Amino acid sequence: MQPQTTLVLTSQAHEDGKIIAALTEMPLPEPAENELVIAVEAAPINPSDLGLLFSSARVDQATFAPGRVEAPLSPAGLAALSGRLGEVMPVGNEGAGTVIAAGSSPRAQALIGRRVATFAGGMYARHRVVPIEACMVLPEGTSAQDGAAAFVNPLTALGFVETLRAVGGKGIVHTAAASNLGQMLVRLCAAEGVPLVNVVRKPEQADLLRGLGAAHVVDSSSPDFAADLRQALEATGADTVFDAIGGGPLLGTILSTMEQVGRAAAGAYSRYGSTAKKRAYVYGMLDTGPITLPRDIGFVWDVSGWLLGPTMEALGPEVRARMTARVGQDLTTLFASSYKAQVPLSRVLDADVVADYNRRATGAKYLILPQE
Amino acid sequence: MQPQTTLVLTSQAHEDGKIIAALTEMPLPEPAENELVIAVEAAPINPSDLGLLFSSARVDQATFAPGRVEAPLSPAGLAALSGRLGEVMPVGNEGAGTVIAAGSSPRAQALIGRRVATFAGGMYARHRVVPIEACMVLPEGTSAQDGAAAFVNPLTALGFVETLRAVGGKGIVHTAAASNLGQMLVRLCAAEGVPLVNVVRKPEQADLLRGLGAAHVVDSSSPDFAADLRQALEATGADTVFDAIGGGPLLGTILSTMEQVGRAAAGAYSRYGSTAKKRAYVYGMLDTGPITLPRDIGFVWDVSGWLLGPTMEALGPEVRARMTARVGQDLTTLFASSYKAQVPLSRVLDADVVADYNRRATGAKYLILPQE
Repeated sequence: MQPQTTLVLTSQAHEDGKIIAALTEMPLPEPAENELVIAVEAAPINPSDLGLLFSSARVDQATFAPGRVEAPLSPAGLAALSGRLGEVMPVGNEGAGTVIAAGSSPRAQALIGRRVATFAGGMYARHRVVPIEACMVLPEGTSAQDGAAAFVNPLTALGFVETLRAVGGKGIVHTAAASNLGQMLVRLCAAEGVPLVNVVRKPEQADLLRGLGAAHVVDSSSPDFAADLRQALEATGADTVFDAIGGGPLLGTILSTMEQVGRAAAGAYSRYGSTAKKRAYVYGMLDTGPITLPRDIGFVWDVSGWLLGPTMEALGPEVRARMTARVGQDLTTLFASSYKAQVPLSRVLDADVVADYNRRATGAKYLILPQE
Repeated sequence: MQPQTTLVLTSQAHEDGKIIAALTEMPLPEPAENELVIAVEAAPINPSDLGLLFSSARVDQATFAPGRVEAPLSPAGLAALSGRLGEVMPVGNEGAGTVIAAGSSPRAQALIGRRVATFAGGMYARHRVVPIEACMVLPEGTSAQDGAAAFVNPLTALGFVETLRAVGGKGIVHTAAASNLGQMLVRLCAAEGVPLVNVVRKPEQADLLRGLGAAHVVDSSSPDFAADLRQALEATGADTVFDAIGGGPLLGTILSTMEQVGRAAAGAYSRYGSTAKKRAYVYGMLDTGPITLPRDIGFVWDVSGWLLGPTMEALGPEVRARMTARVGQDLTTLFASSYKAQVPLSRVLDADVVADYNRRATGAKYLILPQE
């Protein structure tokens, strides 16, 4: 039996220049033929979720009431959200839970009692009705915590490797590499034999990745950064950047250094620069400033936006099936996530909790437990 | 009979921080089996030639002697040329002339007396020995003036259209569109039915292009630029920029406007922006500042360097053959170039001449006539 209503975390951008995040009791619809009713047991707070929940609002200036936060937006921050003004949007890209009811199809009915991971959105909720197609049935015995983050980070890490192979790249440079995703990428690239240069911003992040066995870690805060980066690029042949940052000088520095390595390898002078291809995919915006590309990178380069959905679409059904099968197989090893804290859904808008997870800091990832 | 020596225009970057351009009498080698000896009759001064001849040197501070110019380089300008220091480099990417002698192969011998266009470099010379493969045999009766610029601009214009087709783009936005290349592109796109938005920087340039029949011309100096650009993008569906400029805000503005058009067409809000692909190819550096991409362009975009040689290589032999055949066919119509002035090789380093062509201004293109 399914409940008539359920508790949902929503975000609304308001024309007065604020974001209202709220826990709301909302009706739970009956499942259609091929839909499942899930009791959500665990859902991670990813950077992309915070982009929807609070966007650029100032939570340090917010007003807190039980189950409700109002945080002010700058005029520019408000303008960026003009397309969603007034809309009450459920939050939470992914999560895992147990199927407690299902639509009439035998395929749906067969899944009652099973634990599934889903990537359907609106997962910061006690219950959620989702199509079967948005679910991955977890191996028997998998915990909700282990299955909660089976989509965004694992498929992104696999997507980087598949993208590299699709374009014929030789190796990856990853920025903000100490993130949960970055740690996953270290394990995946080691397993797949893909050369990987990890760029971090602090010595302790470098230590963390070296502790995971990363062979090439360079720290952009080090005085030796330029020389270390060049040496790592020469040692690995890495020619493809996956950049979480966007703004600031780092991406340009990496591409310039790749070009220097390419020119040195080519020997003869060409005023158009090296003909060795350099690629960068910008998949995040930890720095929301403009992407800046210096002109000492020659003419043989590609810089692109990178987004999981369109990338998986472009990679095609065969590669997609390979990727999801791989996630299921290695969920608790290569693709394991770690969390700083677990929090019940009822406490997710408490002032101290919001302040901590909204720092979006490396190693400060939260897991929401909606059944507690 | 071929001469033993010939007059050649060369450029040398000197470690003292200057560029030395000089007319030098140099030995003319015997042709190998499949080489031709050409009496060069006409060679255009393209922006890419000026990049080699003077680079960023200050010709307004140069010292002029007969057949010799020394122009100072800034420290940054010198550093950018570190790979060519001391090397005496012949200048002149392309030109046309008559075959006056040839190597021993029947294929080479058969071309004696014919007029050819070549893209072999070093064409600012009385004579030049080049491989047959670097030549296009001009139709009988073609003048050297008509054949002089048969490669760089025609193949670049065709390369834009072929690139657009290879990536499945819907239409072109061209910046610095009043250039010789831009005028050619107006004619080519009209003939090929390719939607084209021309972006210029002055009202008189807009008038020039409208006079050629260009349907969509927007002037970035106009107060209505933003609205005009948006309207032109909506009218044409143009999604692929070919940018001659690089630095400055224009490229970012075009991509942002494409994104706004894409979002308006999509209707529903997505915080990752429009899924309509936006592409830009940066093929020049009229502004040598960094390329700057604002972050209001979503995540579905590609920005690449574009260089004729690697592009033709990537397009493959079939497309390359189609392109060169097309140039031969339409040399005096679609692919006609116009010149502000013609100048003998002996006068190409005169102070007033250098000052005029090195402005690199629209409508100030020179043609060198080495036999006069």
